Amino acid sequence: MTSLHELEQSERTLTLSLRAHRMPASPIRKLAPLAEAAKARGTKVYHLNIGQPDIETPACMRDRLKMLDSKVLEYSPSTGTPEFLRSLEHYYRTRLGLDLATNQILATTGGSEAILFAFIACANEGDDVILVEPFYANYRAFATMAGLNIVPVTSRGRDGFHTPPLHVWERALTPRSRIVIICNPSNPTGTVYTREELEMVAEFCRRNNLFLISDEVYREFVYDGARAISALELADTDDFVVVVDSLSKRYSACGIRLGSLVTRNAEVYDACLRMAQGRLSPPGLAQFIAVGVESLGEEYTRDIVTEYQQRRDVLYEGLTAIPGVFLQKPEGAFYCIAKLPVEDADDFAVYLLSEFEDEGETVMVAPASGFYASALGKNEVRIAYVLNQNHLRRAVDLLGKALTRYNSRA
Amino acid sequence: MTSLHELEQSERTLTLSLRAHRMPASPIRKLAPLAEAAKARGTKVYHLNIGQPDIETPACMRDRLKMLDSKVLEYSPSTGTPEFLRSLEHYYRTRLGLDLATNQILATTGGSEAILFAFIACANEGDDVILVEPFYANYRAFATMAGLNIVPVTSRGRDGFHTPPLHVWERALTPRSRIVIICNPSNPTGTVYTREELEMVAEFCRRNNLFLISDEVYREFVYDGARAISALELADTDDFVVVVDSLSKRYSACGIRLGSLVTRNAEVYDACLRMAQGRLSPPGLAQFIAVGVESLGEEYTRDIVTEYQQRRDVLYEGLTAIPGVFLQKPEGAFYCIAKLPVEDADDFAVYLLSEFEDEGETVMVAPASGFYASALGKNEVRIAYVLNQNHLRRAVDLLGKALTRYNSRA
Repeated sequence: MTSLHELEQSERTLTLSLRAHRMPASPIRKLAPLAEAAKARGTKVYHLNIGQPDIETPACMRDRLKMLDSKVLEYSPSTGTPEFLRSLEHYYRTRLGLDLATNQILATTGGSEAILFAFIACANEGDDVILVEPFYANYRAFATMAGLNIVPVTSRGRDGFHTPPLHVWERALTPRSRIVIICNPSNPTGTVYTREELEMVAEFCRRNNLFLISDEVYREFVYDGARAISALELADTDDFVVVVDSLSKRYSACGIRLGSLVTRNAEVYDACLRMAQGRLSPPGLAQFIAVGVESLGEEYTRDIVTEYQQRRDVLYEGLTAIPGVFLQKPEGAFYCIAKLPVEDADDFAVYLLSEFEDEGETVMVAPASGFYASALGKNEVRIAYVLNQNHLRRAVDLLGKALTRYNSRA
Repeated sequence: MTSLHELEQSERTLTLSLRAHRMPASPIRKLAPLAEAAKARGTKVYHLNIGQPDIETPACMRDRLKMLDSKVLEYSPSTGTPEFLRSLEHYYRTRLGLDLATNQILATTGGSEAILFAFIACANEGDDVILVEPFYANYRAFATMAGLNIVPVTSRGRDGFHTPPLHVWERALTPRSRIVIICNPSNPTGTVYTREELEMVAEFCRRNNLFLISDEVYREFVYDGARAISALELADTDDFVVVVDSLSKRYSACGIRLGSLVTRNAEVYDACLRMAQGRLSPPGLAQFIAVGVESLGEEYTRDIVTEYQQRRDVLYEGLTAIPGVFLQKPEGAFYCIAKLPVEDADDFAVYLLSEFEDEGETVMVAPASGFYASALGKNEVRIAYVLNQNHLRRAVDLLGKALTRYNSRA
């Protein structure tokens, strides 16, 4: 006779969790060794695949490293240092005209941690997160960590990846829907949502009791004189809006890992605060240098936006001149999704790194399939325009040549 | 007739998740405002409640801040920079005699992130984590974030909080048991587990197909010439041991938020790597300065350990001289759990901050109840001895006076 104890034991095996198996790899993970191999062969690789800007981190931030005179690099408060919270409060007041209290702003380890905190606070394991597809690939990673399912609402390149109409959102509803997450301006599409779109999404959340997580880390990067509207600016959204923010792109300081979570819902703030207490504090050196941005004038962002707009134009003109390539003009962030005249963009991305070269140079792109939950996007790539204009011109030139050669193979 | 759509809608309410509600607050959260109020009254508060060492962060780390000449503070690799991983590899080789490959070491945002990654990789939502009670309170926070239940195996002060015998561990088994987490040397008890104890726990894990997460962030802090044995040194544990480590205490650099996860199980490493890719990279400035420790000689740790051992002795002699106070001599870390001659240590901790003062001074302790999952520990406090010896003597003196006065009240 088998005892209960033996039965119980037999159910346990040393295997990883389901979520460990489900955890997505980075969309370019398979390509990275190919890029390394190409470089090892002496091929120069232009990286259009990652959003690491080449813009300098402001000297007023970097110079603060030399001013640190504390002899003990100790824990900061779990909420963030008072100085850093004040600088964020100042930023939201001057930039967005919002009067936020410091207990509505939580300093986080990059925008990444803010997303994870918000997911865990607002939804139970097995619940659904609705998002606009194509979406920032790491939303899937955080959803998997938090045990959530992602439910895509598909946007189309022909619409500039603006949101589909309300009835498409309503079709995505299930009894487990708890969260909508939007990225505005959008990584990976470069779309900047209009006020009407945002109000539609907010009304959808309000009517269906969903939290709206608004990832606004690309807020500053909007072109042609437009501006991105923060979800915090929408009327009657205090109880369900959670904004995810980051210094990474705003000040080209991706490596310092500093961001913030902003909400006027005191319960959400309090739950996230308890998670923040669990992990003790956000990075201290980052917070120390971050307050240096207070000496930046308005021209800082204006100059960067001007530069990115020119890059956007170089990219857009170059790409649309390639036969069979399609994209709408990106409105913000520094990404676009482009449709290529190929069947399988994954295969083409491999080709670029393993077979193609032109005068010892090639280009790396991120296949868009990793940014979709559905089977769409197979002939699309995501392009980040974080190179200077000359490099960008050459990268687009390489892409055009590669497409011609790829499509003329046997 | 109610449509299915309306039914579905009615099930959704804008409420936080269960785990948000379950997320524990910091054990000293209720006390913090009282400490602030005491300070506002002009009372000096000796903090025995937090593990923030007063030891200087080594100059060879801090000085590197002045050497940073990159103009763009960019993402590091998700795994950590090659330089930082090499410095960890060097540390494990020289300190523990272990030859680890860099793809067995993952740089993390403090030990905190390593715990969360390991929990998520090794267990499904609803699974059990077995741990020795009293335990590091934030294990409960990470378990809650990961959707796991904690199942305590109780250790007793009279045994110096060493592990109970095997049959007690076996009683904690359920069909959902997946992980054992130990902290060695232990926060909050100061216990350093013997090789026999560790081998018993490892054998328990092996026989029952459990992962063993060994939190070794206090590895260096062991007194009376003893040393802490790493779970990585135990035979035949490669497939189930995951070590959590941190630079916070080792180099008194708690605020930089840099740690590591070490495992020889390639699947666990790979799952944690995918989570690491999701959050992009560990803090970059921290990694840049961390490699400065390579110029530290052996005397660095020896001197600090000597200082902490003296503090431990001051604390132990002082506390045991107070009538009714009981503790075994702590063996490592810089904490102890002391039993006080009170019924309710939470109430006494409040008394210390709100009613007691002696020559304008008082002391703050952490009630031990927050370190227990069971109802035990009500008459215990956790004490961190991170003050210099004079301050420590005065703090113990204050504790004794407060106990006398507290117990002689009407």
